[in-house]
Amino acid sequence: MTEFIMYPIGVIHSPFTEKDQTPIQAARSQSIGLVEVYPEFADGLKDIEDLSHIHLIYIFHQSSGYSLQVKPFLDDREHGIFATRYPYRPNPIGISTVRLLSRQENGLTVEGVDVLDGTPLLDIKPYVPDFDLRTERVRVGWYATLTKR
Amino acid sequence: MTEFIMYPIGVIHSPFTEKDQTPIQAARSQSIGLVEVYPEFADGLKDIEDLSHIHLIYIFHQSSGYSLQVKPFLDDREHGIFATRYPYRPNPIGISTVRLLSRQENGLTVEGVDVLDGTPLLDIKPYVPDFDLRTERVRVGWYATLTKR
Repeated sequence: MTEFIMYPIGVIHSPFTEKDQTPIQAARSQSIGLVEVYPEFADGLKDIEDLSHIHLIYIFHQSSGYSLQVKPFLDDREHGIFATRYPYRPNPIGISTVRLLSRQENGLTVEGVDVLDGTPLLDIKPYVPDFDLRTERVRVGWYATLTKR
Repeated sequence: MTEFIMYPIGVIHSPFTEKDQTPIQAARSQSIGLVEVYPEFADGLKDIEDLSHIHLIYIFHQSSGYSLQVKPFLDDREHGIFATRYPYRPNPIGISTVRLLSRQENGLTVEGVDVLDGTPLLDIKPYVPDFDLRTERVRVGWYATLTKR
C-alpha cells in the first residue's frame, strides 16, 4: 500500500499538558500558544505576519490506534470518525485555526490554541475567507446539539 | 528525526487530469467530484450524510520536493510557502472544504473539488462554523490583491 512519510516542521507549545485540559476546539479557546518553526524552515514564514489567522496542521501525537466509530466528547451516541473531530483517526492529523498575534523570527505567538504542549507541527496555511469560509445552508449534523449548549 | 507515516483512506476522483486545469481554490469551483473511501474505512462515514460541508485532507501527489519561498499562481512576488496554499510544501498536505451532495455506501459526491483526479485522501473532517469560521478582523495579507480580482 502506498505510504506517505511526514516530518515535523516545528512544535506547538501550549498551556495544556494533559489531554483532559485541552479545550474542545480552538474557536472556544483564548489560550495563548507559541508555534516554534524549526530554523531550517523559517524562510517559509516570509509575509506570514500580514495574516490575521492561520491554520495549523499537526499530529495528534498522544493518540495511538484509531476507531472508525466513536463517542465524541460531550456526546453519548456513536458517530463515524469522519463525522467528528475526534483524535483517534486512521491518519491522526489535526487542524486548528488560530489568530496570529505576532511573529518573532521562527516563532509565532497565536491565540486560540487547543492542542497539547509539544504537538508536532506538519504545516501552516493562511486562513483566507474566500477559500475557507462557508456560510450558506450549512448543516452540522450531530454537532448541532453540541454547539447550542 | 521523528517521522510519521500516513496511509490513504481513499481517493478523490475529479474532472481534472492536468495540473493547469485545476481551479485555484475550492470556493471558486462548482466542479463535481467523487470521494471514494476504501471499504475498510467505510464504517467511519456513519452520520456524515447529515453534514452539508466537509474538509478533505489529502496529498498533493503530483508535487515532489518543496520550496520555502514561492511565487504563487496569479501573483508575481515571492512569499513564504506557509503564507500560501501552494502545493510544493515540506509536507505536501492539502485541505479543501467542499459541499457534500450525497453519500452512496463508501462514496461521497461533492461539489467544489479543486484537486487532481486520483488524489490520495488522508482524512475527512466535518466543517463546523463554530470551530472553523472566522469573520472578525480577518486580514489576508498578499491574498487581498488576489481575491479582489
